[in-house]
Amino acid sequence: MVTSSPLSLAIPLDAIRYNDQGLVPAIAQDYLDGTVLMLAWMNRESLAKTLETGQAWYWSRSRQELWHKGATSGHFQVVQSLRYDCDSDALLLSIEQVGDIACHTGERSCFHQVEGGMVAPPADMLSQVFAVVRDRRDHPQAGSYTCSLFAAGDNKILKKIGEEAAEVVMACKDDVAEEIAGEAADLLFHTLVAIAHHGVDLRDVYRKLQERRR
Amino acid sequence: MVTSSPLSLAIPLDAIRYNDQGLVPAIAQDYLDGTVLMLAWMNRESLAKTLETGQAWYWSRSRQELWHKGATSGHFQVVQSLRYDCDSDALLLSIEQVGDIACHTGERSCFHQVEGGMVAPPADMLSQVFAVVRDRRDHPQAGSYTCSLFAAGDNKILKKIGEEAAEVVMACKDDVAEEIAGEAADLLFHTLVAIAHHGVDLRDVYRKLQERRR
Repeated sequence: MVTSSPLSLAIPLDAIRYNDQGLVPAIAQDYLDGTVLMLAWMNRESLAKTLETGQAWYWSRSRQELWHKGATSGHFQVVQSLRYDCDSDALLLSIEQVGDIACHTGERSCFHQVEGGMVAPPADMLSQVFAVVRDRRDHPQAGSYTCSLFAAGDNKILKKIGEEAAEVVMACKDDVAEEIAGEAADLLFHTLVAIAHHGVDLRDVYRKLQERRR
Repeated sequence: MVTSSPLSLAIPLDAIRYNDQGLVPAIAQDYLDGTVLMLAWMNRESLAKTLETGQAWYWSRSRQELWHKGATSGHFQVVQSLRYDCDSDALLLSIEQVGDIACHTGERSCFHQVEGGMVAPPADMLSQVFAVVRDRRDHPQAGSYTCSLFAAGDNKILKKIGEEAAEVVMACKDDVAEEIAGEAADLLFHTLVAIAHHGVDLRDVYRKLQERRR
């Protein structure tokens, strides 16, 4: 397994199996929380432009023209990495979405429709829990443990960080996998509450993690 | 925003815009870490079967038949949720992948090809860092801070948990967003080292978080 490759060399243009219209579906995925932001189409030329510029270029099927994503909205997509699938007929772009809005409707992701409503697109579990935590912070409700933490404030929340950290330590000393997973989840959860209480986004924490990846 | 909807009602079958072959692309995404596992195609009938059974059914373009994913391999996909996109011509399935193998090659994800090699599919940043942490654990190298933690063992690692927890507390008391994000990242990182040292998977922690989502 190689861990990275220069973008311009990531995809052999002629190895891709374009369909009879010369197109291949391309999935754009957020590089921090894994959210699928959109599915669009590329032809050989737009894929070449993407590799060359480091920004996503698609083929607009409705306008029948090359489409530099963000050219009108400013919501460019900076490509972090590119992969193609086992039968070479689909692409996956890991991207940094400028403005955090990929959809022409103004939503973050195009994938928000269900029957009779809208839903947030799925992300990793920690980010999903963080979304719930922020919702509890902004919409207090009786009987919610999370809301009771926000209501009690910093000293209560931070005491829990110390307590849960100690419980992770003890579970590791006892070396019981089930306990370790549970206590680590509790520590992560209360860390989310603490950062939400201070208006810090989990994405900022993920960016710090990326910087420190060794 | 609604937060969930019964699977059988999630997608209005006749609102989907199937292409001239009666097909629509469907992205299957891991429900815990957001990894894109595959892109396959559905027709109206396979989508109806998916909604009815709660497992992914596709249309095999090569075999021209309904394809119950996992029927031969055992690698079924249990659908957690379904969404469709803003112009109703693509589907996104959040799934639990039985056996954690989606690709017919035996890889976890179909999206592993880059020029001249293979790469792990992108997931959320915490999971990506965890993959690096486990790699350091299994392949010690000189000069790596992470490797030095594993070499020193439990007491060193657990002392860092206490230290980083205290630093999150202090950063919150100082109420400096940048510091809070950085210290939270450090606490998360050392928690990853602790669980890896005890052979616990981050996925197990995510499962615990899911159970406790309030």
